[in-house]
Amino acid sequence: MSKVSVFCLSAALIGSAMQVNAKEGMFTPEQLPSIAGDLKETGLAIPASSINDLTAFPMGAIVSLGGCSASFVSDKGLAVTNHHCARGSVQYNSTPENNYLKDGFLAKEIGDELPAAPGTRMFVTVDFSDVTDKVVGDISEDIQGRERYDLIEANRKALIAECESEAGFRCSVPSFFQGLEYKLIKQMEIRDVRIAYAPADSIGKYGGDVDNWMWPRHTGDFSFYRAYVGKDGKPADFSEDNVPFKPDHFLKVSAAGLEDGDFVMAAGYPGSTNRYARLSQVSYTFDWLYPTYLELVDAWIKTIESASEEGSDARIKYESLLAGLNNFHKNTLGQLSGAKRVGLVPRRAEREEQLAAWLDKNGKSEMKQALADLDAVSAEQMQMNKQNFWYNNLSRAQLLSSAQTLYRNAIEREKPDAERESGYQERDQIRLKESVERIERRFDPVVDQAVWQKMISMYLEQPEENRVAAFDKAVGIDGNTDSKTLQKKLKAFYDNTSLTSTEERLKWLTASRADFENSNDPFIKLAVALFDTEMAIEDKSKTLSGKSAALRPKYMSAIIEWQKSLGSLAYPDANSTLRVTYGNVMGGSPKDGLIYEPFTRLEGITEKDTGETPFDSPKKQLELIEDKKYGPYKLEAINSVPVNFLTDLDSTGGNSGSATLNAKAELIGLLFDGTFESVNSDWDFDPKTTRTIHVDSRYMLWVMEYVDGATNLIEEMTIVK
Amino acid sequence: MSKVSVFCLSAALIGSAMQVNAKEGMFTPEQLPSIAGDLKETGLAIPASSINDLTAFPMGAIVSLGGCSASFVSDKGLAVTNHHCARGSVQYNSTPENNYLKDGFLAKEIGDELPAAPGTRMFVTVDFSDVTDKVVGDISEDIQGRERYDLIEANRKALIAECESEAGFRCSVPSFFQGLEYKLIKQMEIRDVRIAYAPADSIGKYGGDVDNWMWPRHTGDFSFYRAYVGKDGKPADFSEDNVPFKPDHFLKVSAAGLEDGDFVMAAGYPGSTNRYARLSQVSYTFDWLYPTYLELVDAWIKTIESASEEGSDARIKYESLLAGLNNFHKNTLGQLSGAKRVGLVPRRAEREEQLAAWLDKNGKSEMKQALADLDAVSAEQMQMNKQNFWYNNLSRAQLLSSAQTLYRNAIEREKPDAERESGYQERDQIRLKESVERIERRFDPVVDQAVWQKMISMYLEQPEENRVAAFDKAVGIDGNTDSKTLQKKLKAFYDNTSLTSTEERLKWLTASRADFENSNDPFIKLAVALFDTEMAIEDKSKTLSGKSAALRPKYMSAIIEWQKSLGSLAYPDANSTLRVTYGNVMGGSPKDGLIYEPFTRLEGITEKDTGETPFDSPKKQLELIEDKKYGPYKLEAINSVPVNFLTDLDSTGGNSGSATLNAKAELIGLLFDGTFESVNSDWDFDPKTTRTIHVDSRYMLWVMEYVDGATNLIEEMTIVK
Repeated sequence: MSKVSVFCLSAALIGSAMQVNAKEGMFTPEQLPSIAGDLKETGLAIPASSINDLTAFPMGAIVSLGGCSASFVSDKGLAVTNHHCARGSVQYNSTPENNYLKDGFLAKEIGDELPAAPGTRMFVTVDFSDVTDKVVGDISEDIQGRERYDLIEANRKALIAECESEAGFRCSVPSFFQGLEYKLIKQMEIRDVRIAYAPADSIGKYGGDVDNWMWPRHTGDFSFYRAYVGKDGKPADFSEDNVPFKPDHFLKVSAAGLEDGDFVMAAGYPGSTNRYARLSQVSYTFDWLYPTYLELVDAWIKTIESASEEGSDARIKYESLLAGLNNFHKNTLGQLSGAKRVGLVPRRAEREEQLAAWLDKNGKSEMKQALADLDAVSAEQMQMNKQNFWYNNLSRAQLLSSAQTLYRNAIEREKPDAERESGYQERDQIRLKESVERIERRFDPVVDQAVWQKMISMYLEQPEENRVAAFDKAVGIDGNTDSKTLQKKLKAFYDNTSLTSTEERLKWLTASRADFENSNDPFIKLAVALFDTEMAIEDKSKTLSGKSAALRPKYMSAIIEWQKSLGSLAYPDANSTLRVTYGNVMGGSPKDGLIYEPFTRLEGITEKDTGETPFDSPKKQLELIEDKKYGPYKLEAINSVPVNFLTDLDSTGGNSGSATLNAKAELIGLLFDGTFESVNSDWDFDPKTTRTIHVDSRYMLWVMEYVDGATNLIEEMTIVK
Repeated sequence: MSKVSVFCLSAALIGSAMQVNAKEGMFTPEQLPSIAGDLKETGLAIPASSINDLTAFPMGAIVSLGGCSASFVSDKGLAVTNHHCARGSVQYNSTPENNYLKDGFLAKEIGDELPAAPGTRMFVTVDFSDVTDKVVGDISEDIQGRERYDLIEANRKALIAECESEAGFRCSVPSFFQGLEYKLIKQMEIRDVRIAYAPADSIGKYGGDVDNWMWPRHTGDFSFYRAYVGKDGKPADFSEDNVPFKPDHFLKVSAAGLEDGDFVMAAGYPGSTNRYARLSQVSYTFDWLYPTYLELVDAWIKTIESASEEGSDARIKYESLLAGLNNFHKNTLGQLSGAKRVGLVPRRAEREEQLAAWLDKNGKSEMKQALADLDAVSAEQMQMNKQNFWYNNLSRAQLLSSAQTLYRNAIEREKPDAERESGYQERDQIRLKESVERIERRFDPVVDQAVWQKMISMYLEQPEENRVAAFDKAVGIDGNTDSKTLQKKLKAFYDNTSLTSTEERLKWLTASRADFENSNDPFIKLAVALFDTEMAIEDKSKTLSGKSAALRPKYMSAIIEWQKSLGSLAYPDANSTLRVTYGNVMGGSPKDGLIYEPFTRLEGITEKDTGETPFDSPKKQLELIEDKKYGPYKLEAINSVPVNFLTDLDSTGGNSGSATLNAKAELIGLLFDGTFESVNSDWDFDPKTTRTIHVDSRYMLWVMEYVDGATNLIEEMTIVK
């Protein structure tokens, strides 16, 4: 199969000018011409073909921060993203004397910016090609299981290595449609990223966790980074000599904004969705995995909280993890209730019945067999996950997971680079080092030990077949070990390890396998003792993945063909690659008796304000609102400056910071959240309740002009009316 | 001053056909003719004069349950009220075998009803007259303080005694406009009240505490009592021989219902409001009293919960108190945030400035002086309340409060009936007995002791001037007493008291003062030891009340005149007497970005349903909804049967169960709650956010016809289209 033939297959499957369901869909830019008709009908004012090239305008202005999205808004490397995406960098630079979280930060001139937190990267896509043939084209149908898995991985690694032979670039080979297609994506990796402007938490994080996923919303969730490169224009480490990066494309910023019902699209890097998960996986997730995770996370949160006094140094180190866990907890509860509300399981069952009927009707017996085989492999995978769930969570204790990672690294480093496990190659060593360093700011031995003890207690409550003999033996415990004895044993681990020292951990990054195997450090010894078990689990997992890899593309082909027969265009699940979602500014009715209006207003900030975090808007802002000083940013329909707005766009985690564009591809806001009723949309897009939340460019500009005086940035950007 | 002259004065103050502010106002029926124009304009289709007679139709059909409102809906004593008002009676009759809370209860025929919980009364107003002259007419201006207080009380008691000389009636002399007017209200006291029909908790309490004060709402908060009297038509204790009461008036029930914007009024017995509280009292309440109560209630709840295991017998006895405390807690938080939101303190300050300016402008120097004097008395009262706050809460322990009540009763019973303190007269003895009995079902010594210990600990943290020497001495404690010592001392109280026995407590009801003073029961001894202190506090309190009683009417006269000059009709604060509030069916926008729709629909029940309490609608109901079996109860505008609806009516606690009437005074629902954003309206009616929640008569009839088969009651009522 050549590159061309795969492309033709895709084109054939896609067809042209198809109808799509509501505004569901995270489309790859190359899919856009196929739905040009609907895009135009929805309101796009520029040709759909102009937004299908990842390296041309406007998509060329859309960058990834790895986990968040951003976009260039000037030719001097100025990039706008969410405040919550840049907040770590603000925090990194904050001191009691210069508390930028509290006061905000503004570089009044280029060059005054502060370095972003270590590890911050900006990825600019420079090339994009279909490599399906190179990844799976030479693997025969007969090759299954672990062998298939390894061949695919080897092919991907080879493509990446070749692509990254040019310094300063980061390449990846994500799969689309569950392995039906593979793309090679080449991105310039900008390593000198600086924080140019961030409003205070009391604007950028207004509403905090209370308002997280909530509507009505009044969060000024925006901040500005600036990308720097060496004088040669190539990525470089931070240096005073570096110069602002000159992107090929940047977005104009609209001060005219939107009205209710207007066309919008968002471009960004959504992380992952499960729109094509099989029924059995859906049931497993909602009936077992999520409830079990809730139990785990609940215990985890309580353990951290009771092991670290509020306001203590220890607690501060865990605030970020706690916020993440609480976020996960709320999200999972939302997903569970959402699944119930939309009837996720019966709907998926119905979809599978319809697909099966269509396969029968069209004599697609091979595809039907593939589905049955896939479900069988899935069943094995889920069984394995259930069995290992509590064991896998033992490494929530950071010292154990560090020891395991470091030991694995030593083993992999003995191999030629191309043969190493992904994540342990030369290209990964810097990030490994960064992650080993980062622990320092997020770790306290007392808390870590308490977490480990809790995880082990829960693990010990499991039947023996769900436990791991090597672990029990190495720690010296069994199902009858009482809490006091366990505590004593674990204390010995923490008393006798040197891994609490960053310097020591860093040394182990370059130690040999033998160094590990001769070490007396209790966590290193435990990592060595668990290694064979870990490898056995990994082998089983890869074998099942390999089996699955042969079947999933067939399943997705069936889905695509079936959807096509219904006049719909299937889109691939999110995979952290650039996607476009489009629709309209739109309020909604999430519940009987309740209506979400599409825009919130400045006055809503005053209404919510209590003077206490997270509802402690700056006094200056409250006065400006009181004085109705709207400037040119007023939306007549709401008689105020719009703060946040709702759309029916299809988004998920990773979309944070995505540029929200109007019909002319001008930036009119940033995507930053979904409503609570939408969190379930990763599994099933419900057009009635799914709403995405954006910060309005008019509010951004209003804050910049009147509250923070960031006029230098307004002047630098191209503002259009 | 004769009765007539007072009436003339009132009429003069009231004027006629005045404009009113929005739909604020809990009007006395006699005020209605004065606002006939606005009533008509708002939509009332019958003459306003037809609803101003408390003993004629329709007001004659509106009855009080003491704390709740109800209304007659047949000529056989059938009265409809809220489920939450009748639930205690359902609970009283429930057993594990016949769990009426879970399954609901329906008497298929007259005579099959179950007796309501002990102490349940139905009060039917039979006479109503102005007695201002008789209460204060003979008290000269010079008489102040305690003497004034005692004279007013003596006059009230004399009026009540005379009125109650006819058996079977209960009389009261509430003050209106803070003592500017007094009315004598004579009510028939029906003692044989039976539960005729209550839907299951899964309808009548659907949404439970989660939805309490919330919109959207889907609660079937209705139940039916039937009033019984002796064969002579007079009130009688429960007897098989009793017959259904034949009321003079009853309401027709509308099956046609309402549309958005339609006129509605509600008639019921709102408990108390503070619309005319002075600024200093508002600040005291919101800055000190409410936050302090939150602290107290929070500790109280936690103490009860930790002293009684969930599901234990002890916990079950406290469920009702816990529900009340949680309710109070949520309400108080809502009031505090509401006060901030509407700017209660600055608004009240502004109002006082305007009033003062008006008084100045019109040369009302005497009134202005009265206001200054009133504020001075208030300051003393608040100071006293602050000082005694923690001491007063020591009697949250039930055995101490019982001992104190019983001892006081013995002392009062030595006096002639007319001279006894109100609450301890002959007319009060039955209710005292009932309250002494009721403790049995709501008391556990371990919990009570824990609560007492907590209250004492908090009391001991106060500075010495806020403590009571007699208490400290009697219990043998001081500011340095540690928790263990205190526990030991309190244990001795509970170990050695006989007051835990209902039989023993009942004996004390008729014991002599000497019996108490010779008793060795530790709680009785404590009550005796505290008596002088209690009397000193009471004397100071009554003296201040007497001072205040001379000043408050002047303040209210000022308010009334000032309001009149602005073209507004002042209405008296709620005082548990019959009031009418009117307005329209109306959704609202409680917050920027959010809209409350005016009606909820059957489908909203299914949407909320989780299958678990409190969202566990009966299967039968869910099926009927699934099948869209709306019958004749559908509202076309929402394409379903309306469940609950919102209005802009002015209501408060005590209004629960109030008949909601349409323009023709037909029952179209029951008032049962306010939205969370409204709880602050007791202090300041905010027309933007205040909304009252009603259950729609169409939903009531739909449940009765299709879910519960209560067709006998539908046939008994007069249903109109």
